[in-house]
Amino acid sequence: MGLTQSLPWVGFANSDTDVSGSLFCSECMPGDGETLYDGRMQNKRIVLASRPTGMPRLENFRIEESEVPQPKEGEVLVRTLYLSVDPYLRSRMNEGKSYVPPFEINEVITGGLVGEVVESRSPSFQPGDIVTGYLGWQVYQVARSEDLRKVDPKFAPITTALGILGIPGLTAYFGLLDIGKPQTGETVVVSGAAGAVGMTVCQIAKIKGCRVVGIAGSDEKNEYLEHELWVDKTINYKTEPDIRGALKTACPTGVDVYFDNVGGHISDAVMTLISKHARSVICGQISLYNNEKPDVGPRVQPYLLVKSALMQGFIITDYAARFGEGMNQLGQWLKEGKLKYAEHVVEGFENAPRALLGLFSGENLGKQLVKVA
Amino acid sequence: MGLTQSLPWVGFANSDTDVSGSLFCSECMPGDGETLYDGRMQNKRIVLASRPTGMPRLENFRIEESEVPQPKEGEVLVRTLYLSVDPYLRSRMNEGKSYVPPFEINEVITGGLVGEVVESRSPSFQPGDIVTGYLGWQVYQVARSEDLRKVDPKFAPITTALGILGIPGLTAYFGLLDIGKPQTGETVVVSGAAGAVGMTVCQIAKIKGCRVVGIAGSDEKNEYLEHELWVDKTINYKTEPDIRGALKTACPTGVDVYFDNVGGHISDAVMTLISKHARSVICGQISLYNNEKPDVGPRVQPYLLVKSALMQGFIITDYAARFGEGMNQLGQWLKEGKLKYAEHVVEGFENAPRALLGLFSGENLGKQLVKVA
Repeated sequence: MGLTQSLPWVGFANSDTDVSGSLFCSECMPGDGETLYDGRMQNKRIVLASRPTGMPRLENFRIEESEVPQPKEGEVLVRTLYLSVDPYLRSRMNEGKSYVPPFEINEVITGGLVGEVVESRSPSFQPGDIVTGYLGWQVYQVARSEDLRKVDPKFAPITTALGILGIPGLTAYFGLLDIGKPQTGETVVVSGAAGAVGMTVCQIAKIKGCRVVGIAGSDEKNEYLEHELWVDKTINYKTEPDIRGALKTACPTGVDVYFDNVGGHISDAVMTLISKHARSVICGQISLYNNEKPDVGPRVQPYLLVKSALMQGFIITDYAARFGEGMNQLGQWLKEGKLKYAEHVVEGFENAPRALLGLFSGENLGKQLVKVA
Repeated sequence: MGLTQSLPWVGFANSDTDVSGSLFCSECMPGDGETLYDGRMQNKRIVLASRPTGMPRLENFRIEESEVPQPKEGEVLVRTLYLSVDPYLRSRMNEGKSYVPPFEINEVITGGLVGEVVESRSPSFQPGDIVTGYLGWQVYQVARSEDLRKVDPKFAPITTALGILGIPGLTAYFGLLDIGKPQTGETVVVSGAAGAVGMTVCQIAKIKGCRVVGIAGSDEKNEYLEHELWVDKTINYKTEPDIRGALKTACPTGVDVYFDNVGGHISDAVMTLISKHARSVICGQISLYNNEKPDVGPRVQPYLLVKSALMQGFIITDYAARFGEGMNQLGQWLKEGKLKYAEHVVEGFENAPRALLGLFSGENLGKQLVKVA
């Protein structure tokens, strides 16, 4: 079974599948006849050409050719296999401080990626090791050994290091459990439910015995959520004319936990239906990222007040000290078949900017990846 | 020393005063020549005559004469001494559910009060006992003994049962400490800082070693906050043209805890200045209570997201099981001279509606009371 398929979307690990070993994927490793590292090869990288106003466009990026660098002592040369494409990257394209510093013009875009060590000057890594780290959008690059983490391709497909067993999985795990604190029988609403974080949240909430309502942008996504992930009810925000009415029907006892990936008018509707002591987890606000000025909407404080309710934002690095706990639990659930995941893989390094743009029109079901090699 | 004075405002217990006994106040008890309960006396009560739209007006209330009722077994007859006048009463004048049910048209207004037992058919109470409870705006009324709590006039002035040793004090205590969790050296901003809750919050934050910035609506209030309560900086929101700028100057390292009594544009300004892991305690939204439709403002979710910050509403009854803890601590701080309080006393039962209206123009410094007898 292939790990990934090309567009439009698929490739989730079936819950019946033993992920320990049998899914080791030849696609993800260089083939027999392929040269791992050809010194004559040109390198490629993607830089920020200009800052977008509103929705980013392809011309905000530029693909450049460059030299393949040489690792120094303590460094390794990494060849990129998969790039992670995430909504937060949009914030970094703006000038000014967000929770992460902005990208600089003419500088390479950075993000999560999975790669393969092709040359090592560190005792910690051997050529052929699969690694993950927060690195540049380049085909080849050198990295300091302390900035890399080894990925065990025998445990699960290596792309999971960017998804269910990476930052998106940890984000779902800590955001839902530490802030949302779902209790058996409660109603959990998830916006952006068909994204990498959202679908993991849906499943963890089901594991915790909750009624789960997912909001996503296509009938296909919602069918996946209901039929593959056991989500109880779904709402298509692109076709549903009365989101609040649909939510009210789907949540007859109110919303106890709201896991918010999108913000904007969807979240406005949810807030009117929160129950006493509700918890809103502010994980993302993708509907606002392309706004050119701060958005206005109904104030949330009166709802929080009359319902003794909580709203809390977080960034996953807040939980860095507990990543081990999260990884262990997610890995165990994955092995037990309690968690599934989906990946939306775009082929070709050059298509990374296009894949990022696609996030904002909701093209992806599950984790958005770019297959580089 | 008299407990209370007439308008405009005063009567705070000085921190140097021993409150155990010496402040027992003859004003609060019937005088020698006064008949405690004259069966021929007419009773008076204040009912909701009509629901306000926007700011309430005097004609929304009606004062009626009625019979003095007779207590049945297990009941006591209470003569009202002081009425508590609180912003949340405005919400109850509207139709529709808030966190407390609405007042009904032609029904008596209810709220906190302190009274004196004039006749008892309960073994728990004797004539002359000072009691507090959540009762009607009436000069005389019967109450079930289980709805009353005895007030010890030897411990502190009896009006404190409606203020620093009552719901406002507990609201400040639990809201600030349980949700705001102020740490030594942090910056705490308090809106509605010169109200009964706000000024208690300011002082508890000082006890906890915080830098405190108070926002109130007059220079007199701010002088009181700075000179009597050791508040570090104050802002007059009625005369300051640039609230955000003034806040930024007053909070050079950002706002760690925001205790929000007012909502609206003051809170909008505070949210732009919150620091990493800030906590916003939503205690009241007095600026919005008279709005005829839900208000809009800048969305708070993006601020909460990038700062991993929390916003939480509460109602004091959430903490009912811990009232004993709060009362003990507040009483101890009061005895130690670490807490002061102010009262704004309007004389005369008939003036209760006017006193309520005064809250919305910010007339009160400290606890708004009506002295009935």
